[in-house]
Amino acid sequence: MRQLTELTWREVREAGSGAIAVLPIGSQEQHAAHLPMGTDTMLVEAVLDRAAGLLTGSPELIRLPGLPFGHSQHHLFAAAVSLRPQTLHAVLLDVFDSLVTSGFRRVLVVNGHGGNEEMMRAAVKEFALRTDVAMGACSYWALDPADPGSSPGHAGWFETSLMYAVHPKLVRVPVAPRPAGPEPLFHRPPHPGLVVERYGEWARAGGATDDASQASADSGAELLAARARGLAEAIRSFDAATSDSHG
Amino acid sequence: MRQLTELTWREVREAGSGAIAVLPIGSQEQHAAHLPMGTDTMLVEAVLDRAAGLLTGSPELIRLPGLPFGHSQHHLFAAAVSLRPQTLHAVLLDVFDSLVTSGFRRVLVVNGHGGNEEMMRAAVKEFALRTDVAMGACSYWALDPADPGSSPGHAGWFETSLMYAVHPKLVRVPVAPRPAGPEPLFHRPPHPGLVVERYGEWARAGGATDDASQASADSGAELLAARARGLAEAIRSFDAATSDSHG
Amino acid sequence: MRQLTELTWREVREAGSGAIAVLPIGSQEQHAAHLPMGTDTMLVEAVLDRAAGLLTGSPELIRLPGLPFGHSQHHLFAAAVSLRPQTLHAVLLDVFDSLVTSGFRRVLVVNGHGGNEEMMRAAVKEFALRTDVAMGACSYWALDPADPGSSPGHAGWFETSLMYAVHPKLVRVPVAPRPAGPEPLFHRPPHPGLVVERYGEWARAGGATDDASQASADSGAELLAARARGLAEAIRSFDAATSDSHG
Amino acid sequence: MRQLTELTWREVREAGSGAIAVLPIGSQEQHAAHLPMGTDTMLVEAVLDRAAGLLTGSPELIRLPGLPFGHSQHHLFAAAVSLRPQTLHAVLLDVFDSLVTSGFRRVLVVNGHGGNEEMMRAAVKEFALRTDVAMGACSYWALDPADPGSSPGHAGWFETSLMYAVHPKLVRVPVAPRPAGPEPLFHRPPHPGLVVERYGEWARAGGATDDASQASADSGAELLAARARGLAEAIRSFDAATSDSHG
Amino acid sequence: MRQLTELTWREVREAGSGAIAVLPIGSQEQHAAHLPMGTDTMLVEAVLDRAAGLLTGSPELIRLPGLPFGHSQHHLFAAAVSLRPQTLHAVLLDVFDSLVTSGFRRVLVVNGHGGNEEMMRAAVKEFALRTDVAMGACSYWALDPADPGSSPGHAGWFETSLMYAVHPKLVRVPVAPRPAGPEPLFHRPPHPGLVVERYGEWARAGGATDDASQASADSGAELLAARARGLAEAIRSFDAATSDSHG
Amino acid sequence: MRQLTELTWREVREAGSGAIAVLPIGSQEQHAAHLPMGTDTMLVEAVLDRAAGLLTGSPELIRLPGLPFGHSQHHLFAAAVSLRPQTLHAVLLDVFDSLVTSGFRRVLVVNGHGGNEEMMRAAVKEFALRTDVAMGACSYWALDPADPGSSPGHAGWFETSLMYAVHPKLVRVPVAPRPAGPEPLFHRPPHPGLVVERYGEWARAGGATDDASQASADSGAELLAARARGLAEAIRSFDAATSDSHG
Repeated sequence: MRQLTELTWREVREAGSGAIAVLPIGSQEQHAAHLPMGTDTMLVEAVLDRAAGLLTGSPELIRLPGLPFGHSQHHLFAAAVSLRPQTLHAVLLDVFDSLVTSGFRRVLVVNGHGGNEEMMRAAVKEFALRTDVAMGACSYWALDPADPGSSPGHAGWFETSLMYAVHPKLVRVPVAPRPAGPEPLFHRPPHPGLVVERYGEWARAGGATDDASQASADSGAELLAARARGLAEAIRSFDAATSDSHG
Repeated sequence: MRQLTELTWREVREAGSGAIAVLPIGSQEQHAAHLPMGTDTMLVEAVLDRAAGLLTGSPELIRLPGLPFGHSQHHLFAAAVSLRPQTLHAVLLDVFDSLVTSGFRRVLVVNGHGGNEEMMRAAVKEFALRTDVAMGACSYWALDPADPGSSPGHAGWFETSLMYAVHPKLVRVPVAPRPAGPEPLFHRPPHPGLVVERYGEWARAGGATDDASQASADSGAELLAARARGLAEAIRSFDAATSDSHG
Repeated sequence: MRQLTELTWREVREAGSGAIAVLPIGSQEQHAAHLPMGTDTMLVEAVLDRAAGLLTGSPELIRLPGLPFGHSQHHLFAAAVSLRPQTLHAVLLDVFDSLVTSGFRRVLVVNGHGGNEEMMRAAVKEFALRTDVAMGACSYWALDPADPGSSPGHAGWFETSLMYAVHPKLVRVPVAPRPAGPEPLFHRPPHPGLVVERYGEWARAGGATDDASQASADSGAELLAARARGLAEAIRSFDAATSDSHG
Repeated sequence: MRQLTELTWREVREAGSGAIAVLPIGSQEQHAAHLPMGTDTMLVEAVLDRAAGLLTGSPELIRLPGLPFGHSQHHLFAAAVSLRPQTLHAVLLDVFDSLVTSGFRRVLVVNGHGGNEEMMRAAVKEFALRTDVAMGACSYWALDPADPGSSPGHAGWFETSLMYAVHPKLVRVPVAPRPAGPEPLFHRPPHPGLVVERYGEWARAGGATDDASQASADSGAELLAARARGLAEAIRSFDAATSDSHG
Repeated sequence: MRQLTELTWREVREAGSGAIAVLPIGSQEQHAAHLPMGTDTMLVEAVLDRAAGLLTGSPELIRLPGLPFGHSQHHLFAAAVSLRPQTLHAVLLDVFDSLVTSGFRRVLVVNGHGGNEEMMRAAVKEFALRTDVAMGACSYWALDPADPGSSPGHAGWFETSLMYAVHPKLVRVPVAPRPAGPEPLFHRPPHPGLVVERYGEWARAGGATDDASQASADSGAELLAARARGLAEAIRSFDAATSDSHG
Repeated sequence: MRQLTELTWREVREAGSGAIAVLPIGSQEQHAAHLPMGTDTMLVEAVLDRAAGLLTGSPELIRLPGLPFGHSQHHLFAAAVSLRPQTLHAVLLDVFDSLVTSGFRRVLVVNGHGGNEEMMRAAVKEFALRTDVAMGACSYWALDPADPGSSPGHAGWFETSLMYAVHPKLVRVPVAPRPAGPEPLFHRPPHPGLVVERYGEWARAGGATDDASQASADSGAELLAARARGLAEAIRSFDAATSDSHG
């Protein structure tokens, strides 16, 4: 996986028709009292780098610099640096337009933040309707074939374990247990398949969806390896399914 | 369930603080050679009416006229009447703004068309961040607790069976079997959790995701009853979870 | 007149080049204490259905599902469900774009609500400048050749009589007389040809522009018949004037 | 009538609460082979200046510099300098917002170009809904009480006569008669009350709606005097009807 | 220099391919207690007319009517009539689009108001990227080759002297000296090259950036002559550098 | 200078009222055959880090993650990844809104790419008009007090020297001399103070504005030190001038 930022424009042009352009997107938002603002960005970049290491050069990947800001309007109560939904949508479509103008025919967005999902999906759908490309989009945590529908939560056991594995010095210890109280409705809807969004829910819930105090570096290492494998396999699958989309 | 369109404005005002406003949204788009353009709209309205019949008056529901057009840009190749994503988003937010100005504090969107999901979710999230409300959103087919993640397909066995049950005269018979060939990537992604959107995929796939020739009115009646039960339970759950959001 | 919602996409395609696509647009807004929210939508649909019955199949009409929401920002003080002007404009242009993509070359918008007029006119003008089509637009009450400039008012004698004829059970009786006081400036401008819009005028005026207490079903039946004849003649005229716009 | 452009800001502020701010809007667009591009702008300014002379200082008017560009997208085939509808709408709302911030409570738009009417009406409606003001809007030719509904046409007898009276040197003589052929559908609709817009109609119609070859300076002087009287009376009526809107 | 507003559309068309279209843009905003609202508009038009007199017909210039409103949001505290940045941008792009549709290949914007600069530059850049044209843009005060980087200030010595020369009756005398106090940060940044914008700075600074009490008609005459020479030379240079952009 | 991405949200909140939030913005665009796509981003970050080292902790700076994409529409012909102007503007305003919601009162944008300047300036102006903040904006190359107006060019001697100093391995050697031919009009305007933008100019000019073949690491080290000193002094000046803007 080469870094677009380090290539000359001719090298990008030459790579475009065959390679997959990969755009990581993250966020800067509250992650409770123990994780840093950039947790989502750091984790998606770590999983992507690890996945690329498993791929040994095929398919060819050109990695764009990560978008460090995401849609975190629901965390503005707590120091997020957030893009409005329509701004994120515009950034994604501008980047896609640029890549296609440069000759790319295949683009993969790898997401590190739940709040980005609607606009990410909307953007790849909209773009693939008007341009002759194959677009992929995924959230790094949702690709484990053994547990495809898992919802790992925010600033809880899952993300804290991963941060112990990836950036242990940035975890403020000891991690306090989550205060008692029901999980927020957006995380545990009252009926399967129902989306419920209620004003002020994030502030009521505190900054985390579940208890992070039992997170550990060992769990994090396992989670990281599994997520990287899942992403590597997803990239291979995307490559195989869209190999006739070469320029 | 009372119809907003038949109420005077004072009746709407009086209902607002306690009732749930329900907005069905559908589409006008191709449904292969055997189903009509309005299939999604007809089905979501049929399931909602049946669900309301199961609720026996509690919670109080005020049903808005259905939005007959949805986001079907991917079906413009085949006679859809479609709203662009940003237009659908604007319609939803305008309707939500109006309802809150009228005194409603709880709104539920019931969706009949997969292409509406991103904008529906984005709209309820965005609205609940800026307004003191509880918003619900669901697609009618995704609420069966026994099979919450099912993806029932487009113009195939699922929708055709339901149309046999709801509007049998509108199904053109005999229904031809689906031509051989792989299912489209947007319906069967090459890896679980990965979204793949490829230019021209709907046209390549033909108008249906799966074979409708085995659909039947009996299956449709069972599907209808199950979906109505699922929706009724989802509405009860939404009511219970948000009853403290009364005005 | 066939219903687009009941046709398959191939039937729509086949009709497109010769038929006229007809889009009714209405509103959900206050109509004083005695008429329901959907009055405008119900009346435009009733007049259109009656007109179609007078046309005996020529020209061929493909009727779209009515847009149940209109521009009623001036009625938000009283429970309207309203689209902002730019949203209504976007919906109309999206629908027009879709119809032309489906092969239609002639589109007629039939309006039931005064507040929609500016955006309806702006949309058909804008669309006909950029696309090779013939667009028609009218408000159902303004087509009587014997009285082309009549301004029938809101929730008064005219609409109440029509509702007695079309949906008598939805009229709450007895209908109270309109309180004394000047008619609002937007309805009776201080000089012919001058538009005057003043903040809060609708709330000051109460919900009706004129007295509805003398309305009757007989008057309504006559009004309905006359308006249907006017619309039928307008459609025939539109067909004759634009018959060379066939695809 | 004082010119805003010549006043200091304190003088504007002092005038704001009692005076009526008057904004003339025109166009730059083709007016056949004999009239200049700025005809609409010149005529609306001439009628306004003449009307102000009839008012002898009451009500107090603060005249803004005229907007020289209007919505003339239908004349782009022939060298118009045109604003898109949404741009004109934005300019009007920005000007209104500014005036209210400066203390004005009454604003009158005086229009010289038919293509501006929808956006002018939409803008004053929209603004008066959100701001405590009284807004007036009119087209200078439509205020003659003896003939309120007259449609004087474009670059024909009416405008040419007026230009003979106002700027005779700018009329290229002799004025050629209009070529034979039907009047365009937008000017003579096939049914009263029906708006018909057809692609390419302006180019087919040539640049004028009716024959200008019989226009004369004498007719123009009469038309000018009548239109100025009509506008002066409309301004007096607007003042009387909204005098309680003073700041 | 001919006035577009006085030409017929055929004359504009004929001029388009070789001439330079010139658009003056100004503002309506506070200019302290002694200068009128339209100062910027009057000055840019005066300098442009004088410059055109120096050019003796080559290159051919077609002058558009000036845009009397500019971006003055920072002066809304004091009676400005202002366009928001995006509105000014839209107006400029609409005018450019119109001119190119009319056959012009070269357009020059001459600006009279500092607050217009960002949008003027952004608009000419954006337009020249998508359309085969040569665009020029300048502020009339910044073209003196002897002092290209001068910042002449707002409502101070520079503009007051020019107004004494151009419209002496519009200067309210005697002109009061500027109150003591630091110059505002937007005019005298704390470090060269650094832009500093602080909330409320214009109101704190009073209406002028520097002392106008020493301004004189003689200085104004010299400034006017120098600015006109600078603009004339800039126009000649633009013509020479872009003469191969003829249509 | 602390990194926002590494802080918890409470640490950000605590810093907000007194610290200056610093946002570096760059680009991904062609830099001739010898420099990488991310040159502007790398250089602005290098200068900022060096400047922060000179400040020894006062004022307190909270550095946001750099925006790696900028406005490079003029480089789309050569593999740029670019945001449209309105998208860059939206990103900046969203970030500013977020920072103010988090408690910051002072924000400084440090820019590495000439194409970002209009939107950067427009965004800080617009934001400071509507929010009680002090905003700073600068381009890192334009702050040397000894040479404040210098225009260092693109992919030429200046940037190549800096890259030799900062990321020598990313410079492809030997660097070819610039082909003969006039410098592009946007870099060397035909008259001082005149902006000229001509379609296709960047492609005609090749990728660089001046000759890079004489660039050297020694020159780069000197340039880097001077620019870092200039930025450090600009930050100190901004802090001093706006210290009363603390929350």
